[in-house]
Formats: sequence, structure tokens, C-alpha cells
Amino acid sequence: MSGAEPGHLYGVGLGPGDPDYMTLRALKVLQSADVLVHFCRKGKRGNGRTIADAVVAPDPAREIALVYPVTTEIDSREPAYGSAITPFYEEAAERLAGELKAGRSLAVLCEGDPFFYGSFMHLWRRLAPRFPTEVVPGVTGMSGSWTRAGVPITWGDDVLTVCPATLDHDALVRRFIATDATVIMKLGRHLPKVRDALKEAGLHDRAVYVERGTMADEFICPLSKKTDDTAPYFALILVPGQGRKL
Amino acid sequence: MSGAEPGHLYGVGLGPGDPDYMTLRALKVLQSADVLVHFCRKGKRGNGRTIADAVVAPDPAREIALVYPVTTEIDSREPAYGSAITPFYEEAAERLAGELKAGRSLAVLCEGDPFFYGSFMHLWRRLAPRFPTEVVPGVTGMSGSWTRAGVPITWGDDVLTVCPATLDHDALVRRFIATDATVIMKLGRHLPKVRDALKEAGLHDRAVYVERGTMADEFICPLSKKTDDTAPYFALILVPGQGRKL
Repeated sequence: MSGAEPGHLYGVGLGPGDPDYMTLRALKVLQSADVLVHFCRKGKRGNGRTIADAVVAPDPAREIALVYPVTTEIDSREPAYGSAITPFYEEAAERLAGELKAGRSLAVLCEGDPFFYGSFMHLWRRLAPRFPTEVVPGVTGMSGSWTRAGVPITWGDDVLTVCPATLDHDALVRRFIATDATVIMKLGRHLPKVRDALKEAGLHDRAVYVERGTMADEFICPLSKKTDDTAPYFALILVPGQGRKL
Repeated sequence: MSGAEPGHLYGVGLGPGDPDYMTLRALKVLQSADVLVHFCRKGKRGNGRTIADAVVAPDPAREIALVYPVTTEIDSREPAYGSAITPFYEEAAERLAGELKAGRSLAVLCEGDPFFYGSFMHLWRRLAPRFPTEVVPGVTGMSGSWTRAGVPITWGDDVLTVCPATLDHDALVRRFIATDATVIMKLGRHLPKVRDALKEAGLHDRAVYVERGTMADEFICPLSKKTDDTAPYFALILVPGQGRKL
């Protein structure tokens, strides 16, 4: 349809996993967009698409899956990661640009909040300057996790630090000591290192482990009760603040 | 109704202000709870109640307003603040306990996310051990703000620090220097101090000012373009991270 108005690009925050924690705006966009776009690993269904199942039935004719060439099998700080992932984002953006130029609206499904460590951001910076774009904020995975764990994260004047678990041991210890409350994201294979750093900072006994918070297979326990060192990427550790109780 | 089952206590995150950013679960609880509870200043309607207007019409018979005896006119670190506010939370909790014992369900309206600097936490710690309780997470004010400002807040391995503006100048500078991305909350009369600290940390030119993000009277500009020093409590400053662009 040459000459058509370009379609709208939507980055839709779906929230932490429980579809009831989707926003009213997210629901409306999912129901009305021409095409749903999601990221996934090779041979797996995307987590974002699974969250959306509760409100939009699977429909191959209305879906685009963007298959990551690599995820956690290469350290994201290695050059090999960038040289595999950058062409992927380039090609994905061009593919979506073709849809938008043809006048079709696209809803990119984002776990949590799109502008908080979201893969969508790599599409957004390539496409938002060229097409009408709306980002729909979402409940973050960390909010869902501290809610289900029953631990208010910040009281009064508490400072909160959100650290990716990819930081090295010494950097983690420095951050832990300098803050009141902490969330450690993207845990995966970094759990043993994070555990040691929490011990060194004297915080291990206050830490709570949350795996897939608000999803059907959610698992929560004090970190000190987790005896193995296996954690998925969608696991995090919370160290709640101890600020002013009124 | 002595002998009745106790009512449920709900802490309902309403999101950053735009009612479209309320979750499906929040909507359901607002529509079904027996009583809606909100916090407000003397003589003013609560902001939480205003957000809920879009989905539940005002109904004095179904509402409890908890009127703060003090808010920002006394520094919250002064003893006078605690001696006014603690009895307020004690009495509010007992009043709500009476409703719950009578079998009525209560939805406490919370701006943003209840467990992230929320007043609800002071009711929760008094009531959750005694009554069935559900907390509904919400989109935070900061997520709504960075979304509307068009600034992804964290990329790759960025560390995010959330600082209340109440910290003193030197503490703010230390936090700003030690992190990749920053959100400064609860701005109000602390704006001149925060501005100076950002200048000292070399971050003033990257900072974005957001007032009432996602609300009808939202205002957003680069901090360097904001020439006056007046800011409401519901204003924040964002310093977006500059981490890995893939």
C-alpha cells in the first residue's frame, strides 16, 4: 500500500508475568494492533508472548517472532556478543520498518517496563526517530517480586540501588555497602559471586531470593535457605531497606 | 456483624497518574471492594482518589479519607514530624481494623507502587499480620516519568540509584558520582540543593526534570532549561544511563 500513512510502533510493557498486572493501556494496544512482535530464543516461545496469551489468542498470521542469535551463552561484555547481536537488531528494525511503512501498527511485547533494561530499547532507538511511537510503561519485575515476597523495598529516605549481577565481586560489594536497599537483577549463573559479595557486605541474612516473581512457577525464599547455586536469568535478589517506620 | 469473616485489606497500586496505566487487577479490586480508602492533605482531595475517578465514581458512603496531620511543612527527620504522624497511622490502622473486623473489604488507594516509598506500608505493617491482605503492584511514578520523557533509564549493565532529594548535598554528590543512572525523588523545596549537587557531579547537562509525569498537567524539560527553583513534591529528576547500545 504505497502512499499509506505509516503504522504506529508501540512498545508495550506487559508487567512482571501475572497477566492481571498488565495495564489497561497495554490491554487496549494488544487488542487493537495489527501485528504482535515478540523476542524469543531459538526453538522457544517468548516469555512476553506467553504473558499476552491471557488476553490475545495465538494467531500466527498476526505475529512476528524475533529470534535472538545469542542470549546468555556468550558473556554480553565479549566482542563476540556484540558482533552477533548488533546485526540482529539492525535486521529486526528494518523488518519492522517495512511493516510500519506498509501502514501496519506493531505492538512489541516487553516483559516488565520497556525503558528499564528492555530489549525494545534497541529497536526504539532505530525506529522512534522515523515512525510515530508510543511506549506503554509496565510494572517492573522487581516491583512484582517485592510485592509477592511481602517486603516493602524502601522506607522514608532509603536509597535504592539496582545492580545487574554481571558486575564483578568488588564492584558489587562497594555498591551493597553504599546503599540502604538493593535489587540484584539478571542473576543466572552469577548467583555464587553475588552470594559471596552479599556475605562480605554483611547483607546475606537480609537477602530474599525471588525466581519468576508473579509467574505461575514463582519461587521465593530467604537467600540463606537456598542451598543450591542454580538460578535462571529471571531471578533476582532483594535486600529491603530498613528506613523510617512511622 | 459479630462473628462475620474479616474483610480483606488491599493495597492497590494505581500507577503514576494516567488512569490507563492502572493494572487489570487494580481495576477489579477498585470495582469490588466495599470501601475505598485514600490519604489526603487537610482540605484537599487525595491524588490517589483523583486517579481512581476514571474508573469508580465518587461515593461518600463508600469512602474513607485519612487526613495527614502534617505533610511537607515539617521536615520528616524532625522529632515533631514523628510525634504528629505516628499517632495518625496508629489511629488510622485501628479505624480500618474496625471495618475489616466487621467484614468489609478495604481498598487503600496508593499512587505508584505500594511497596516503593508508599504511605500504605505504615498501615500494612500494622494490619497485615492480623487480616487477610493482598498488595497489588503498580507502575511507579519514575517509570511513568522516564516513559513520557522519552529517556530509557538503564542500558546493558547500568547501575540505577534512586535517591530521595532529602539527602544532604554531600551525600547526593557521592551517590551521583558512584552510579550510571539516577532518579531523584520527592523533589519539592530540595530542587536548588539537588541542582548544585548535579553540577558538582558533572551531571546537570544530562538531567531531565519531570513534574507530575503522566498526569493531565504533566511538565517535562531538560533541567538546564528550568530557570526557576519551584518544584512540587511530585516532581523528580532523571539522569539516564549511557550503557551498552547494541
